[in-house]
Amino acid sequence: MSETLTILVTGWHDEAERELLRRSAPGARVEFVPDLTAVPSLVETADAIAGHVPDDLLAAARRLRWVHSPAAGVDTALSPGMLASDVVLTSATGNGAIPLAEHAMLLMMMLNRDVPRWLRAQADRRWDRFTHDELAGRSVGLFGLGGSGLDLARKAKACHMRVLGMRRRTCSPDPAVDEMFAPEEFHRFLAACDFVVVTAPLTAATKGVFDRAAFEAMRPTAFFVCVSRGGIADDEALLDALRRRRIAGAGLDAHGVEPLPPESPFWGLPNVIITPHNGATTQATARRGLDILADNLGRFSKGEPLRNIVDKAAGY
Amino acid sequence: MSETLTILVTGWHDEAERELLRRSAPGARVEFVPDLTAVPSLVETADAIAGHVPDDLLAAARRLRWVHSPAAGVDTALSPGMLASDVVLTSATGNGAIPLAEHAMLLMMMLNRDVPRWLRAQADRRWDRFTHDELAGRSVGLFGLGGSGLDLARKAKACHMRVLGMRRRTCSPDPAVDEMFAPEEFHRFLAACDFVVVTAPLTAATKGVFDRAAFEAMRPTAFFVCVSRGGIADDEALLDALRRRRIAGAGLDAHGVEPLPPESPFWGLPNVIITPHNGATTQATARRGLDILADNLGRFSKGEPLRNIVDKAAGY
Repeated sequence: MSETLTILVTGWHDEAERELLRRSAPGARVEFVPDLTAVPSLVETADAIAGHVPDDLLAAARRLRWVHSPAAGVDTALSPGMLASDVVLTSATGNGAIPLAEHAMLLMMMLNRDVPRWLRAQADRRWDRFTHDELAGRSVGLFGLGGSGLDLARKAKACHMRVLGMRRRTCSPDPAVDEMFAPEEFHRFLAACDFVVVTAPLTAATKGVFDRAAFEAMRPTAFFVCVSRGGIADDEALLDALRRRRIAGAGLDAHGVEPLPPESPFWGLPNVIITPHNGATTQATARRGLDILADNLGRFSKGEPLRNIVDKAAGY
Repeated sequence: MSETLTILVTGWHDEAERELLRRSAPGARVEFVPDLTAVPSLVETADAIAGHVPDDLLAAARRLRWVHSPAAGVDTALSPGMLASDVVLTSATGNGAIPLAEHAMLLMMMLNRDVPRWLRAQADRRWDRFTHDELAGRSVGLFGLGGSGLDLARKAKACHMRVLGMRRRTCSPDPAVDEMFAPEEFHRFLAACDFVVVTAPLTAATKGVFDRAAFEAMRPTAFFVCVSRGGIADDEALLDALRRRRIAGAGLDAHGVEPLPPESPFWGLPNVIITPHNGATTQATARRGLDILADNLGRFSKGEPLRNIVDKAAGY
């Protein structure tokens, strides 16, 4: 008789969800723990952990073979300990791709039409009719073409936009992407966009790539939108470009520091729309995340290959 | 030698635009007049007028054969005099279909995610992260399937929505429309929608059809969006449904009275987003309207069939 697998799960509090997760790994011992630090002996004997595992616990978890990140982006999960270990890391990638693409489209439309102006007029009961722009005929450049980038590409085509894409692998673009650019063409890519949308993960290769030179390469009429991770844009360079109107404006859901502190100058810029890393915070995202974890629990308990395995070197 | 045609044009002030219109009707006398009432003798001898023609001038225009409305909706152009006359009426229909569909999508997203809450939080420099909904998986019912309705159907499909449609002719739905309803199925149609979007023209058949019974038929979680014409919804019934939260909220670009007066209760409802009949006010809409008029001027001067001819009985 084979040894029973022990799987620790953090973060799922609903009993129906827990039952679904338990049933997805028949034969395994699935333990729901609110706090890993409170159960050191369980961590020591766990075969798998779903949740964030700090490096000290990772070092103590001698039997650990698999960690599942509840987030789609694994920049925080990829700690030095995790990078150095043989433990397989999987992610919830794909759980929020669709609502994130919706959020990017929403921010683009809000910037394109100056929605805050209408809401101010409504508050003042003023009929403020003005000429604005439309998305149709404009170009959008997608920095990152994973799940949310590709879904956004299709939405942008339905809005009659020209869709440009940039990612590490320039091969096999989707039919919704009109033109692909390689990383070495970054500035040429930026210069062709009316909207630049960051959907890429934060990795060693993307950290700070939107620097002063990048914003200088953008059109002065263009908008910058970020829905994946802060830190891909250098905050000082972005602030400077926005203050000088070197670019037209920005829609920011992901921020270099989160929560964005009250003293951050981003809040007060008239050409910036701020949302609190909230683009994919939907019940459907949680449900899709649950499905991904349940699927992987089943695979792990049967010894099958896991899905959403993170390429630790690439960072996603 | 045939007699020279006289065409009066109101509303185009840019000299380059005027030159384009003149050139599109070679051989005709194209006169730009700021105010038809100031040039009674020209009106009397005009073969065609592009602009709004009041009934008294229409009666005086003995040679008039064609009137072109600069608007896409012709509810105001269809005066008693115009309805009774043999003069052909054409419209600019199609000029704003795309930006109107964008505006409807924007209002749907703003209601779906409670955008005003984020903008209030930004003004207060507050990190207000909350769970919201996503469009994916929701159903949208399009009341009217002309240019803007069909374009919106395709955008909604790209947002992974179920698309329902209702119009007079239920034949030949677009592939983007999942299910068509006939007018006699109105309440069944409404009951199936998470979003109801009015893109229909204001006609004898549509005036006031969104009455108390219609809002009672809607889901209490559903949103009402109107981007075509006020008056299709009965304002008192709509107000009552919004105040009692019989429906979740509304996004209104078209209003029963325009400009919406400061004392209108619609401005202050917390579950309503107001825009000032501004969805299609873009430079591209003006350019498309110019192209339609120029095309028809060419057709008229050559004696060819006009495009965008209004069915006066149907009202669009």
